[in-house]
Amino acid sequence: MPRLELIPPGEFARVASAEVAPDERLGLLADMCRANALVAVKRAGSGHLGSTFSSLDLVAHLLWEELNVANLGFDSPDRDVFFSSKGHDVPGLYAALNALGVVPTERLLRLRRLGGLDGHPDVGVPGIEANSGSLGMGISKARGIAWAKRHLGRGGRVVVMTGDGELQEGQNWEALQAAAHQRVGRLLVVVDRNALQSDKETEEILALESLEAKLAAFGCRVVTCDGHDHRALREAFRSLWRDDGTPGVLLAQTIKGKGVSFMEHPAALAAGGGTYRWHAGAPDDATFAAAAAELRDGVERRFADLGLGPVAFEDVPPLEDDRRTSLQGEPESGAGAPAPKTAVTDEYVAAAYGEALLELARREPRLVVLDADLASDCRVRAFELTEPDRFVENGIAEQDMVSMAAGMARHGLVPVVNSFASFLASRANEQIYNQASERTKVVYAMHYAGLIPAGPGKSHQSLRDASLMAAIPGVTVVHPCNAEETRALVEWAVLEATESVAIRLAIGPSPRRIELPEGYVPAVGTGVTLREGADAMLVSYGPVMLHEALTAAELLEARGIEASVVAMPWLDRVDPDWLAATVAGVRDVLVVEDHAPVGALGDTLRRALASLPEPPALSVAGVEGWPACGTPVEALRHHGLDGASLAERIALAVPGRAGT
Amino acid sequence: MPRLELIPPGEFARVASAEVAPDERLGLLADMCRANALVAVKRAGSGHLGSTFSSLDLVAHLLWEELNVANLGFDSPDRDVFFSSKGHDVPGLYAALNALGVVPTERLLRLRRLGGLDGHPDVGVPGIEANSGSLGMGISKARGIAWAKRHLGRGGRVVVMTGDGELQEGQNWEALQAAAHQRVGRLLVVVDRNALQSDKETEEILALESLEAKLAAFGCRVVTCDGHDHRALREAFRSLWRDDGTPGVLLAQTIKGKGVSFMEHPAALAAGGGTYRWHAGAPDDATFAAAAAELRDGVERRFADLGLGPVAFEDVPPLEDDRRTSLQGEPESGAGAPAPKTAVTDEYVAAAYGEALLELARREPRLVVLDADLASDCRVRAFELTEPDRFVENGIAEQDMVSMAAGMARHGLVPVVNSFASFLASRANEQIYNQASERTKVVYAMHYAGLIPAGPGKSHQSLRDASLMAAIPGVTVVHPCNAEETRALVEWAVLEATESVAIRLAIGPSPRRIELPEGYVPAVGTGVTLREGADAMLVSYGPVMLHEALTAAELLEARGIEASVVAMPWLDRVDPDWLAATVAGVRDVLVVEDHAPVGALGDTLRRALASLPEPPALSVAGVEGWPACGTPVEALRHHGLDGASLAERIALAVPGRAGT
Repeated sequence: MPRLELIPPGEFARVASAEVAPDERLGLLADMCRANALVAVKRAGSGHLGSTFSSLDLVAHLLWEELNVANLGFDSPDRDVFFSSKGHDVPGLYAALNALGVVPTERLLRLRRLGGLDGHPDVGVPGIEANSGSLGMGISKARGIAWAKRHLGRGGRVVVMTGDGELQEGQNWEALQAAAHQRVGRLLVVVDRNALQSDKETEEILALESLEAKLAAFGCRVVTCDGHDHRALREAFRSLWRDDGTPGVLLAQTIKGKGVSFMEHPAALAAGGGTYRWHAGAPDDATFAAAAAELRDGVERRFADLGLGPVAFEDVPPLEDDRRTSLQGEPESGAGAPAPKTAVTDEYVAAAYGEALLELARREPRLVVLDADLASDCRVRAFELTEPDRFVENGIAEQDMVSMAAGMARHGLVPVVNSFASFLASRANEQIYNQASERTKVVYAMHYAGLIPAGPGKSHQSLRDASLMAAIPGVTVVHPCNAEETRALVEWAVLEATESVAIRLAIGPSPRRIELPEGYVPAVGTGVTLREGADAMLVSYGPVMLHEALTAAELLEARGIEASVVAMPWLDRVDPDWLAATVAGVRDVLVVEDHAPVGALGDTLRRALASLPEPPALSVAGVEGWPACGTPVEALRHHGLDGASLAERIALAVPGRAGT
Repeated sequence: MPRLELIPPGEFARVASAEVAPDERLGLLADMCRANALVAVKRAGSGHLGSTFSSLDLVAHLLWEELNVANLGFDSPDRDVFFSSKGHDVPGLYAALNALGVVPTERLLRLRRLGGLDGHPDVGVPGIEANSGSLGMGISKARGIAWAKRHLGRGGRVVVMTGDGELQEGQNWEALQAAAHQRVGRLLVVVDRNALQSDKETEEILALESLEAKLAAFGCRVVTCDGHDHRALREAFRSLWRDDGTPGVLLAQTIKGKGVSFMEHPAALAAGGGTYRWHAGAPDDATFAAAAAELRDGVERRFADLGLGPVAFEDVPPLEDDRRTSLQGEPESGAGAPAPKTAVTDEYVAAAYGEALLELARREPRLVVLDADLASDCRVRAFELTEPDRFVENGIAEQDMVSMAAGMARHGLVPVVNSFASFLASRANEQIYNQASERTKVVYAMHYAGLIPAGPGKSHQSLRDASLMAAIPGVTVVHPCNAEETRALVEWAVLEATESVAIRLAIGPSPRRIELPEGYVPAVGTGVTLREGADAMLVSYGPVMLHEALTAAELLEARGIEASVVAMPWLDRVDPDWLAATVAGVRDVLVVEDHAPVGALGDTLRRALASLPEPPALSVAGVEGWPACGTPVEALRHHGLDGASLAERIALAVPGRAGT
């Protein structure tokens, strides 16, 4: 980890009160925020720099000039409310809130750590006005806030920032039509129009233009300006606040990666060979050093130019690395997130999934793949490039993607639909139900299923997806534990299954390679014993929790307790004969869920065990409450799901045999 | 029931092959379909006449002139595909398919009956190309079908009809932007622009205009014409099929209720005092007779004018009424659906809910109510009229409604959000999760929860909603069983609960008044014993299933088996002390779910029972598989959930005590 330096709040205060031209001042404050956001992201090991940088002039302009919050405080009922609907730009907002003294520095330095700052906005953090991270909800929320303010006779206006790719989500258009109709007023939408999605241009993924015409047709007053030109921004805000009740939209033309030359669009896109590399993920040490130096040089130069003297940087220690065990990297929503060096293995089950699709393309001509702007993360970019005629990019519009797949399936194709589990299973839930009701088959690849990586926070961690599918007749939910099982289950889903299948996939590197018996072939409803043991039984699935279960068994062995570990990839199917044979003579079963404790394997097994004459006692260790944001170790420990906590739990359940 | 007469397929064939002007012919065929659809709906006791009638010229024009299906047949891979995204207009399509010999008359005469024709489209019926009924999915599906046709080198085009109010759903705009971008081609959207939603004008509920400008901005080629003028329709189709890859949209200006003078907009809206009464529900006998006579007269006059001689009507018997027990009426999506005469009580828990809100408005100034174009069905029209400043109509846009409520809740209001359970819990699932994650409180009124009424079919019956909420931390799901419990739970949710509450509500009349003990006040996690009995225990909730459970206990009593019945309105909260006391000494518990057998009360009790030393055996009777469409009796019996089936099941479980 290279040397990390923050610009302390005092320096921001110095700039804010300096007698310099307001536009210069705001531009400088924005760059100072960029410098600090870069440090926070580097220290955290992940985060979204591209749109943090594109949006920061807007954020700085709002907080230091346009809004009343710096004066009234974030607790005033009459405050102006500002939040970002996309949410992944929050490192920039955190940096600004830190500069304003709202978020303490020690908390900024715990970005994406337990008890620190969530990877996506959470109202538990001072100055954060709305939870976001899943796209498309912001304009609706902002309208609700504006309505409440008006109804309660409170002062203050509401500004919501959206991404541009985010506007592909249909909810935005629901929200705008209602804003135009209801004439709530005091509502302003700022579009961070940086023209890039996660790693490609919006016009390539799913064209937005003419965005201005769309917004106008939906009843908005639209002003377009350069989102980095503070004079232009000032004029734009002034004209948009002449409020006649119709929603105002500022189309702010910005540059993704603004402030660091090699991260700036379009140069960065060209340098990446058509792929933008700085959407998500922390840069490596050398890249960080170059970016930090460029930002620092610019800030120092302007301090000097403005007669403000030298900049007082503050050294900050890098985060201690507590990922020694149980770890997973944290790629998310964006290509180019390098595997952390601390990864225990280089196995990615999602990569095996992508390879399996390519292989199946040759065997199953009906196979087609659909994506919602997560092609890199979902490992289907290779499929897109190899089989362009069998790949459909639908942009950030999961509902449309699922229903399109339903239409394809009705006419003989085998669609494989890709997104993150948290978005796919919930946002498109009714569309999945509708598709399944036509008795066709669609394969739902639900990536980033489970607790880990825990840095992005609760908008991205998917602990509900199995329960969301549980009551849809005919849908099978599986969660493979290693590359081989992933390939086998993808093959089964595409070639053999007669109804829809949801495949939960871990997105990070496997913390260990789960070894399955030689010749193992998944059979519906049947698990496999990974380790024998007469004292207790752990049942789990997926690389993350099976690693913890195996770790628990290893720890218990040292204490004289023999725990068996069973891998059970079928979350809603149980073969009763297999179950009876497997639990024969077992007194205690602990199901370790990479899911909430309800609606997944534990409930399935409880139902199945009820028909056995002498069922074992079954308990479930799952993610209780809201999933913790932090490192893998922090999150697993917080939820009692790390190997040591599981071992302790089992030792307490079988005290007669415990060595303690 | 008045005399019912159908026009047999032979008469349609006579008109179709007659040497008359094509526009005359198509208009006549449409009116003949109207006459038959009216009979089918009257016979079924429910259905949607208003938009069946507005769309029928479009349907007739497509099937008899524009599309190739009448020639190629509905099994040809090269056929043109037509379906309605709104789906509730399906009686008209059924009538047309019957006229073409695709749907047999005996099946048309079993509309909304088990084994007959589903209340909303299902691909199990010949000629039905897509399942619909929940709004907004059709354009996406149609694009998927068009994509598949192109990919597979098949012939045929795809025409999808949408409602106009339906376009408030954001998914439509996702679908259109993708259609414009992907240039799939061969895709045509026909908007049945009848200007009315369920019972009010679109421009009043949530304005669509300028719809043409919106569609054009989204990249569509738009042609507007009179949707009842077959010459205009012919020209419009011709111009729209000049396919350049961009999606074509026909904005067909239609008249809701077309063909029956007193059902036609705008006269009918004026006659209803601003409320359109013919959206859903079968007309009463006198109204039916008047409508049937008007249609018949028109058809006979035109037969005569065209030299086709008399019309050969066919007498059909009215449906036998098998609703003697266990019944519920079938109001749905629309005001004015009269309670069927067979209702056992005049209690509607939803009405009690609406009254409770009005009363609470006086006690809780922060209370606000939101609706998604179901104000009459959700019984909040009175609130809207009495408290207009505290009521927000969001149109058919559940996601927007929920996120707007989230914003209101963050700023101190107590929003109560209304829709049908099937739409609210699934379409807006991720928005509910996001709202709950802000630790605010929103009350979700999930109307039409459960199996009954079973006529509308699986798009409307809600058997998954509890499972969809189960894994959202902090959300409590309740299901009251009578008017008093409804009032008490609404009051608890609004005034006392600290986190979000989902209230499941039956929409039809209660089949019996469930008597609760005097002075009963709901307490979190605690049920109440309605009937004592030592041999077995039935646990259930809601007026429908508690009636069946009580009926079962009454039937068992006659066989010498004493079954207790427990009402348990808390589906995901259990007080362990209450549970232990209640099941003490009980060997068998049967949970009767108005829900799928997973994800609701049964799973909750199984988890809670696991901590008891000697738990009873628990089994669950729930709605397995896809919910049946039919009368209440048919559906309950089909799923083994009627009192007699439940009694039989219990008698088998306690054979030692059974009198059989």
